[in-house]
Amino acid sequence: IIFIMSKHISCVRCGPNQLRSTTGLLPTHSFLSTNASIICQQCSTDKPVCVTTDGFGCIRCPGSLSDDGKCQCPKDSVLVERDVSGNLLDEARCETCNGNSPALSSPKLFCRCERCQASFTNTSCLCKPPNVLVGGLCFPPGSLSTNVNPSVNFAQLKFSVQSAWFVQNLYSASAACLVFSNLTACQALGNMCVMNMHSFTGVSTDACGLFNTIYRSRAALSSTQDISYWRVNLPWLYYGEEPGLAGRVLQTDPVPVGFSFRGRNKNTDIKLIAAVYNVRGEFLRWEPVGGQNIQLCPDTKTKQVAAFSFGTAYQQSCDLSVKELLDTYPEPLFYDVFMELGGGENKKLLPLPTLVNNQQYNGRFINQESMKNWYLSRRIFLVDGLSGREKSLSAQPKVIRVTSSVKIRFQLVPRTLEGQVYPPLIIMTYRDVPITDIDTQTVSITFAVEYEMDQNEARMKTNTALGVMGGVAVLYSLLKTVSWKRRIASPLIDVETVMKFLLFYAGDLANVFFTVTVGTGLYWLIFYKAQQSVSVLLPLPAQEEQFVTYIGCAFALQLLHKLILQVSVDVFLMDWERPRSKAGRTVQAAGESKREPSPVSIWRTYFVANEWNEIQTIRKISPTFQIIAVLFFLEVLGFSNLALRDPWPTLERSPEAYTPAYSLILRYGVAATLWLCIGLLQVIFFTVFYEHFVEDKVRQFVDLCSISNISVLLLSHRCFGYYIHGRSVHGHADTNMEEMNNNLRREHESLCSQRGLLPNSELQTFQVSITNRLRVQYDRIREPFSRVNGPSRLMDAGSCNGLEQQAKAYNTMNYFLGSIIDHVSADRERVDFIVLKSFVHTSLFCLPCCIIYHAHSFSDVLYYGNEATLLIFDTLFFCVVDLGSQSFVLAAVLTYLQQMILRLLRNTLGRKNLVNKTMVDERFLI
Amino acid sequence: IIFIMSKHISCVRCGPNQLRSTTGLLPTHSFLSTNASIICQQCSTDKPVCVTTDGFGCIRCPGSLSDDGKCQCPKDSVLVERDVSGNLLDEARCETCNGNSPALSSPKLFCRCERCQASFTNTSCLCKPPNVLVGGLCFPPGSLSTNVNPSVNFAQLKFSVQSAWFVQNLYSASAACLVFSNLTACQALGNMCVMNMHSFTGVSTDACGLFNTIYRSRAALSSTQDISYWRVNLPWLYYGEEPGLAGRVLQTDPVPVGFSFRGRNKNTDIKLIAAVYNVRGEFLRWEPVGGQNIQLCPDTKTKQVAAFSFGTAYQQSCDLSVKELLDTYPEPLFYDVFMELGGGENKKLLPLPTLVNNQQYNGRFINQESMKNWYLSRRIFLVDGLSGREKSLSAQPKVIRVTSSVKIRFQLVPRTLEGQVYPPLIIMTYRDVPITDIDTQTVSITFAVEYEMDQNEARMKTNTALGVMGGVAVLYSLLKTVSWKRRIASPLIDVETVMKFLLFYAGDLANVFFTVTVGTGLYWLIFYKAQQSVSVLLPLPAQEEQFVTYIGCAFALQLLHKLILQVSVDVFLMDWERPRSKAGRTVQAAGESKREPSPVSIWRTYFVANEWNEIQTIRKISPTFQIIAVLFFLEVLGFSNLALRDPWPTLERSPEAYTPAYSLILRYGVAATLWLCIGLLQVIFFTVFYEHFVEDKVRQFVDLCSISNISVLLLSHRCFGYYIHGRSVHGHADTNMEEMNNNLRREHESLCSQRGLLPNSELQTFQVSITNRLRVQYDRIREPFSRVNGPSRLMDAGSCNGLEQQAKAYNTMNYFLGSIIDHVSADRERVDFIVLKSFVHTSLFCLPCCIIYHAHSFSDVLYYGNEATLLIFDTLFFCVVDLGSQSFVLAAVLTYLQQMILRLLRNTLGRKNLVNKTMVDERFLI
Repeated sequence: IIFIMSKHISCVRCGPNQLRSTTGLLPTHSFLSTNASIICQQCSTDKPVCVTTDGFGCIRCPGSLSDDGKCQCPKDSVLVERDVSGNLLDEARCETCNGNSPALSSPKLFCRCERCQASFTNTSCLCKPPNVLVGGLCFPPGSLSTNVNPSVNFAQLKFSVQSAWFVQNLYSASAACLVFSNLTACQALGNMCVMNMHSFTGVSTDACGLFNTIYRSRAALSSTQDISYWRVNLPWLYYGEEPGLAGRVLQTDPVPVGFSFRGRNKNTDIKLIAAVYNVRGEFLRWEPVGGQNIQLCPDTKTKQVAAFSFGTAYQQSCDLSVKELLDTYPEPLFYDVFMELGGGENKKLLPLPTLVNNQQYNGRFINQESMKNWYLSRRIFLVDGLSGREKSLSAQPKVIRVTSSVKIRFQLVPRTLEGQVYPPLIIMTYRDVPITDIDTQTVSITFAVEYEMDQNEARMKTNTALGVMGGVAVLYSLLKTVSWKRRIASPLIDVETVMKFLLFYAGDLANVFFTVTVGTGLYWLIFYKAQQSVSVLLPLPAQEEQFVTYIGCAFALQLLHKLILQVSVDVFLMDWERPRSKAGRTVQAAGESKREPSPVSIWRTYFVANEWNEIQTIRKISPTFQIIAVLFFLEVLGFSNLALRDPWPTLERSPEAYTPAYSLILRYGVAATLWLCIGLLQVIFFTVFYEHFVEDKVRQFVDLCSISNISVLLLSHRCFGYYIHGRSVHGHADTNMEEMNNNLRREHESLCSQRGLLPNSELQTFQVSITNRLRVQYDRIREPFSRVNGPSRLMDAGSCNGLEQQAKAYNTMNYFLGSIIDHVSADRERVDFIVLKSFVHTSLFCLPCCIIYHAHSFSDVLYYGNEATLLIFDTLFFCVVDLGSQSFVLAAVLTYLQQMILRLLRNTLGRKNLVNKTMVDERFLI
Repeated sequence: IIFIMSKHISCVRCGPNQLRSTTGLLPTHSFLSTNASIICQQCSTDKPVCVTTDGFGCIRCPGSLSDDGKCQCPKDSVLVERDVSGNLLDEARCETCNGNSPALSSPKLFCRCERCQASFTNTSCLCKPPNVLVGGLCFPPGSLSTNVNPSVNFAQLKFSVQSAWFVQNLYSASAACLVFSNLTACQALGNMCVMNMHSFTGVSTDACGLFNTIYRSRAALSSTQDISYWRVNLPWLYYGEEPGLAGRVLQTDPVPVGFSFRGRNKNTDIKLIAAVYNVRGEFLRWEPVGGQNIQLCPDTKTKQVAAFSFGTAYQQSCDLSVKELLDTYPEPLFYDVFMELGGGENKKLLPLPTLVNNQQYNGRFINQESMKNWYLSRRIFLVDGLSGREKSLSAQPKVIRVTSSVKIRFQLVPRTLEGQVYPPLIIMTYRDVPITDIDTQTVSITFAVEYEMDQNEARMKTNTALGVMGGVAVLYSLLKTVSWKRRIASPLIDVETVMKFLLFYAGDLANVFFTVTVGTGLYWLIFYKAQQSVSVLLPLPAQEEQFVTYIGCAFALQLLHKLILQVSVDVFLMDWERPRSKAGRTVQAAGESKREPSPVSIWRTYFVANEWNEIQTIRKISPTFQIIAVLFFLEVLGFSNLALRDPWPTLERSPEAYTPAYSLILRYGVAATLWLCIGLLQVIFFTVFYEHFVEDKVRQFVDLCSISNISVLLLSHRCFGYYIHGRSVHGHADTNMEEMNNNLRREHESLCSQRGLLPNSELQTFQVSITNRLRVQYDRIREPFSRVNGPSRLMDAGSCNGLEQQAKAYNTMNYFLGSIIDHVSADRERVDFIVLKSFVHTSLFCLPCCIIYHAHSFSDVLYYGNEATLLIFDTLFFCVVDLGSQSFVLAAVLTYLQQMILRLLRNTLGRKNLVNKTMVDERFLI
């Protein structure tokens, strides 16, 4: 392993009066060699002798020597060392050039006099007075006032700089433009105006003022390309002489080519080209925009090109080193940007208007005001390290001006389906960077392409929908409140009623808002992603997120309300079983009534209570599967890519391709739709397939009631509730396995009557309304239950007395409710069969103490019957977390936790309630 | 809106003999103007007159005219149009240059004769014979055989090209190098050898052959920088004159600077710089490597810089347009790459050896063979569009040669903790691209930085661990087989025994492999991500994935085995309850035995069976929470970033930063560790906190047995199983709520005996071994159960006969088992209390029909007792899916589905088994 000591690499030059050896080492390799100084030879040191310009000989000089040991001649003469044939002269000669018209020669080339510049044509090369020599040009007298203002205003830094470039060139350029109509000079003058941010200060001696003076003077001449803003021989800098034409330029005539995302006419390429000029006003070339010129941030080609695919919201930012920018752009380049329309022979160019945010008009930043004040312009630059140089052009600039943001904005023509846009606007924001520590300074740069469309129509539609449905919600909430009043059998309108109404209204309003927002999200998703010709563009990010959060809260309130109702429902398990010794009358002999009957086993009640406890939180969907499935679709199958701000409905994206930002409204649309769809599919699967062919927990519970000879009375409101009729058709259920199996077999063979409350009916589940009187009675019997509420956990219960009272109350309640049901069922009139239950009926016109059939409607007090609310709440929770964090995985995790905690809470409180209301020990609810 | 018709943009030139007007438009603007042709004026058409060279005047010519209408002079003379002072002559003159020594001038400049080239110093500018004029140089006779081979071999395309560049320069460069020791010429010769892929063909007349000839001729001279491979005045192209030194160069001396990832000595910057030469051999500059020069693919600066951060595996690929490459690199640039060590004054340069994959040595691609054949070299280029030009240098090349792959490979010095590496090797692969359709052709380019370390030691350690633990696994499996033989009470060694042994062995081996692989993964994770000085580098992707898949399969087998055992376990629910009329002897009078006793309610059995069914698949963790938590850590908290192939243990990565590829072994390490850790935390939480303070389902079941007066006998093997003693301490459990509550209260107040099988003991759960005789008896009694197995779903069962027989068998079994337990518990000897149960004891030395205490060991037949297996299986499942798909989300989704399906299967089969074995109707297991 070998090391090289890195020496300071410098080219060794021969000193003054030293000859280079003919086999001299190239300076480039001198760092590898140690004998670089040997190869220089000294000329004879006789006074006037020096080395020839090519360094290979010695010659006597006619005059003095320059600092580097070469012969020197006066200003208007040239040094001649060899004759025309190449023979070295004995002594060099200084030949004076013939500077007078018509000779027209000046010492331009090293070896001989050459013709002088074109502006000297009619005078001598010396530009004798009264002609004026400025910037290498010779002007006739009086062509322009020499009082020009060469200062460049850096408004952000609040100071001006006497720019060396302006000092040298402003007068000559404007004079040459005005006098000679020199195109290059006119371009150079225009460039100086551009470097001054297109700003008018009111005085006409700065760059833009001079430009404007010349512009006005050309008003009589025909315009270029029939464009009235573009005067002959001048660059096109402004749209008009005054501000106020922006609306006419931007929103009058659409671009005649329509964009289309698919189909035969697919057209998404935005082709921008720019005419590039250097600072001296020379036209350099036509250049396609993109890549290195206007997108300053480096990136892969594929990603950069994506900016010019119509419909893709593009943004690219980076920090660039000021030093590197200055090295790359020692002089600014100027771009006139056009859009290329059509192809082949029909190729047309559309000039793009530019809005310079930094542009001042008599001290006002008019382009930062509203559109009607805008003063559109043309010609942009990216980095200007030239105008900030104060003393000389080679000095380090005091300030450099960098384009901190380039934004190209497309606006869709409203109410057309042909994908037409107005002429795109380039919005430039320049940044003045004072040079302090050039090596470490950086400047942040953004390039963006945006698409806008007039959203007023959509907003109006949304508002209409919200208004109409909000009104309906008021009515619906009123009805619900009235119904609730009936159910608690209270005729007064008190604060509670108002609160309840507000609660109902909040819930209904949340429903309305949810429908509208999901509808909106879905609308944008479908119409943006599936459109053929461009007719819809995304709204810009708005207060969507906050709005959805409010809806989420409303739903949380609604859910909480329902859950509180659920965990405070009144439950009683009625046991129809009577002790054997009495019931088995036919078998046993009479007169045995003195023997204590064998007790009715409580285990059936335990069993039913246990099962009731278990079905509290079953749902019509599997909530975990829901989360996992949604995650699968979004993250694995790539549905999340549908929310990107580009018009492609593809699920898979190449990692090399440009990934635009996510649109919040699309994210919401995709997530909510997906969540609801999968939820709906699950509900269909569970209700249609699973509950029919695998298991239906709710049905199983009803069956269990029937087999175990136990009825369930659920009072969700004071005077309203549900009744599950569970009287065994066999009379007894408290028996051994043999008899149980026999009973089941007999029922299967239809050897016994049907399970329903009424003869020959299968109906087991009912809604009940009871009278206030009945309720009072019920409460009185229940009193001992709640009295020993605290220590009713039986292992802890100390007092035998309490236990006995409870047992007595339990038995009383059993008999009391039994007799009522017997009474009711005997009177067919009181049992109303309404298969198509209508809301109005049950709430308003129901007679006191009637029972109304409605299959499984008791599941309203379970999770099971509130699937819609739960599903929507989960959806909103998921969406709100996602909108906040932009991470579907986090949303899934938090939704899972929310579901888990809510379920745990519901289970715990529900169990406590069940223990309190049914007297079943908590330990049997496992 | 205004449009410009885009005209064909061309500069209008004045025709021959036309004068440009002095105020002429710039050609650059002629496309905007329509009057471009007006401004040309014709010179007088008199015969010899033509336009002057500067285009501003007319002059008579001394000789003929050239095609573009200018005067023409003979080869060794110059055209003179003006005198020295710049006055136009009447007639142009042709001045012959003085070509003889000592005048030394030739027509180099346009306006006058100039000194001719340095190699002509000792002869005239005409290079008169016998001197040889080649490539603009004049050589003395006989300096080199002129028979050189200017062909470039494109080995991939199997043809050679007579390269125009080689034809022009090969001889002159080698002659100038040999004769004049001209450094530039030597460099140019070297470059030609590099363009020929450093290949030796055996003949010495091609570029490398000529270079080698000169190299050998300089053997006597001192070497540059004390590097023996680097001869004075020559570029350094080869390591030695023959292949075979690669090992010595690459693996002898480490780079003296250590790399370190953190701490005070943090040093991760790889600073590469290159000396850049153009094709003519001129040294251009020193250039830091990276960015635009060797990384051809465009990307953001941040990402490109990441390639030179030590330890970050870097790879970047792209397709570049051939046309653009050719435009960017019209001539190849040559790079001598060095690594910069130290800073400031101590800066040193380390030359990096290069391995050119395309290099041929007498027809063999030796660098594609094993390392001992390698022939290392130096100097690389990126794009060579020059050597493939056949006729002239301005023609389109027939072939261009592009670097399709640059790979920088670092190798860690083994067994050092100081972060030392051997000199990095640059591996170049060039690609010969024949030019067919240059506009559409692309070429794919890769730039990569790789890190390697000798993995033999690690591999050996792993193998040792596997070997030792595999041996232990054999012994353990044997023991398990013997134990199993006892449990089924079969002394024969048959095929089933061997199968069983293999099954056990597969399971144990899987355990061993799992331990080793997770250990390995964790080892790499910790030692790679947490190392301070570089001591560990990642192994390259190996067959890890396949290996883990095998282990996964072994675990699936093990799990399946356990599950099959579980769903075929023999269960019997023993009811200790006796009918009241008999049991209540003390209360009732005698002589009432003729009365049929009221039946014992079966509902307690139903309750117990229902609960047993419910605890089948409960686990010590929440499997869904497990998945969600792992996903949260990996995807939201960013633990997945730990698996990236760079040494930074940061969880958050900026989206702008370079993201290296994932390392499979690190992914496995992170995922498995995270899964196991979260699993372990969950197990601890559930067993320590949840089961003590919230609920313990298994304990609850045992309690329920005790309260309901029902024992459970579980026979997992023919002669081995578990027993849960559930005899109620109150004698009766089949009673009403009041008595139940009383019983519970009494027990709480310790007013009754303890629940254990033996007096004054709390022990309720046991392992049992029974004799074969007992088992035969058991099976005989159970016979009727299985006989009506098919239609035993009671609703379907038609025959009353079957039902009766079943009920009879059930009662018999009840009494039979009751008597045995009574018998055993009476004999204290038979009940062995072994709190610290040892494996050997239970399997080998246990007496026939003994009962051994082991708390909750019956959970072996539940999910609950097999948490370890389930957890590991889930871990492996997750990891295998992830390794296959590189998506944690997909792995999570599939793991969830796998868990769901497995649980569903286990539940369904377990329930069927329970129905068959206990006679409890399926409808009660809800």
